[in-house]
Amino acid sequence: MSYKEIFSYKALIESELEKRVVQRDAPEILKKAMLYSLSAGGKRIRPCLMLEFYRCLGKNPDEILNFACAVEMIHTYSLIHDDLPCMDDDDMRRGKPSNHKVFGEDTALLAGDALLTLAFETACDIDENIDASRALKAVKYIADASGLTKMVGGQVLDLQAENKQISIEELEKIQEGKTAALLKVNAFVACTLANADKNTTKLFVDYCDCIGRAFQIRDDILDVIGDEKSLGKPIGSDEQMNKNTYVSLLGLEKSQQLVDELTDCAVKAIKKATENSENLCSLALKLANRDF
Amino acid sequence: MSYKEIFSYKALIESELEKRVVQRDAPEILKKAMLYSLSAGGKRIRPCLMLEFYRCLGKNPDEILNFACAVEMIHTYSLIHDDLPCMDDDDMRRGKPSNHKVFGEDTALLAGDALLTLAFETACDIDENIDASRALKAVKYIADASGLTKMVGGQVLDLQAENKQISIEELEKIQEGKTAALLKVNAFVACTLANADKNTTKLFVDYCDCIGRAFQIRDDILDVIGDEKSLGKPIGSDEQMNKNTYVSLLGLEKSQQLVDELTDCAVKAIKKATENSENLCSLALKLANRDF
Repeated sequence: MSYKEIFSYKALIESELEKRVVQRDAPEILKKAMLYSLSAGGKRIRPCLMLEFYRCLGKNPDEILNFACAVEMIHTYSLIHDDLPCMDDDDMRRGKPSNHKVFGEDTALLAGDALLTLAFETACDIDENIDASRALKAVKYIADASGLTKMVGGQVLDLQAENKQISIEELEKIQEGKTAALLKVNAFVACTLANADKNTTKLFVDYCDCIGRAFQIRDDILDVIGDEKSLGKPIGSDEQMNKNTYVSLLGLEKSQQLVDELTDCAVKAIKKATENSENLCSLALKLANRDF
Repeated sequence: MSYKEIFSYKALIESELEKRVVQRDAPEILKKAMLYSLSAGGKRIRPCLMLEFYRCLGKNPDEILNFACAVEMIHTYSLIHDDLPCMDDDDMRRGKPSNHKVFGEDTALLAGDALLTLAFETACDIDENIDASRALKAVKYIADASGLTKMVGGQVLDLQAENKQISIEELEKIQEGKTAALLKVNAFVACTLANADKNTTKLFVDYCDCIGRAFQIRDDILDVIGDEKSLGKPIGSDEQMNKNTYVSLLGLEKSQQLVDELTDCAVKAIKKATENSENLCSLALKLANRDF
């Protein structure tokens, strides 16, 4: 068993994501734009985590594939909107031209809107084994995590911090919204749908929180020491854009130290949460030293 | 009893919309941008219709205020994104500078995203008298109406039709997505939550369909013969932008004739649907000749 097991859900998720768009009666160019970003080859870490958590809770991951896809659609829409000229103005994403470079700003904007909306439609399309009232709670968690107080709020704080020196606390608040919320929601959703108790839920959430923060710090590190080819994006862009990062605030060494501490914390939490923690422990360790 | 009764829900809806943003812990500028457009004084016709339908079905409208607000949030987000420079590039909306003119494109984009997301969070926040499984179905209706096959899809078709001569059928397909879907959804939601039968639901939906199409045609007429002050927007913009409208395709007289036929059809449907149809009949007649 290893972290690779977690990514074994990838094919299932990707085929379901594609199906949810391809089968709909919508303008071809819109579907193309949605699929372009949906199938741009992300790591699918969010939906894979959700399915693995659910498995750890003794349940069949197939039952909540729709929720996993919903979270990935939301992640994808946020990347499309982030890349727009009025936002980060990024021409490339995952080694390919960004959505608006291929489809134009108007269609890219609408493809993002459509993915966000489709996420909620997909989340509501529940398996017969799922309790409706728990499902409704899960959909609400997903909306909360992606909304004004979390993901979108984090984006706004990030815009405000541009070209400004901020504190490590302010940086953490930005990351909490921009990144951590959409990771933690996978724990909330899986635990809610599996009817896990409060304590177990908290441990899964803590795991997400720790690997999420470690992931972000490692991202900042890779923007300095990474390899453009394995990353699929140019390095040095944070410094060039004068962005506040963990590395700019703490330095390289202290940043990696923090990654290691957070990874340790993630491993401890998940071991307490479930007897089936092997894959998730392996994932936390892998992410701490990733170069992709 | 008259159409004015329907708009008596307005104050309730507006106070709830405001509360749903004000009470949240989010960046002030984001909340300001969301509230700016939410309280820009629309007619609130969509949420008012939903609550009135529910009342006609013998239910207490307070029970579904969250769903009514969700639909209005979605309508509002769509206006913000529509006005963006990469879309219609409109500087004014309802007699006030459009959202991005006040808050900048980046914040306007995010305010739209946040409103769309908050709509689903709000819809999931159900009253204790509402059945969870019906609620989930209602949320799905809302997502479907605003997504790739309907509202966003209609936007894309509209973009594709720019500076092109299209047929009346193509224009109707655009309007079906852009306007009709988010009107009809109020009937679907109210009927689903009130557990109305199929036939009744169809009649409420038909009513929405007819007044929706009449509304859009009247919109096109007002862009030619309207008064800028009572409309709160400049007239003649459709012709100036070379837009396909009912008036450009059918002429003024035939367009108003179509409005009257559709209104008649709406009145017939709603009279069959419910004994309490008085307000809704009055509304259909009022809208057919509106100058606002």
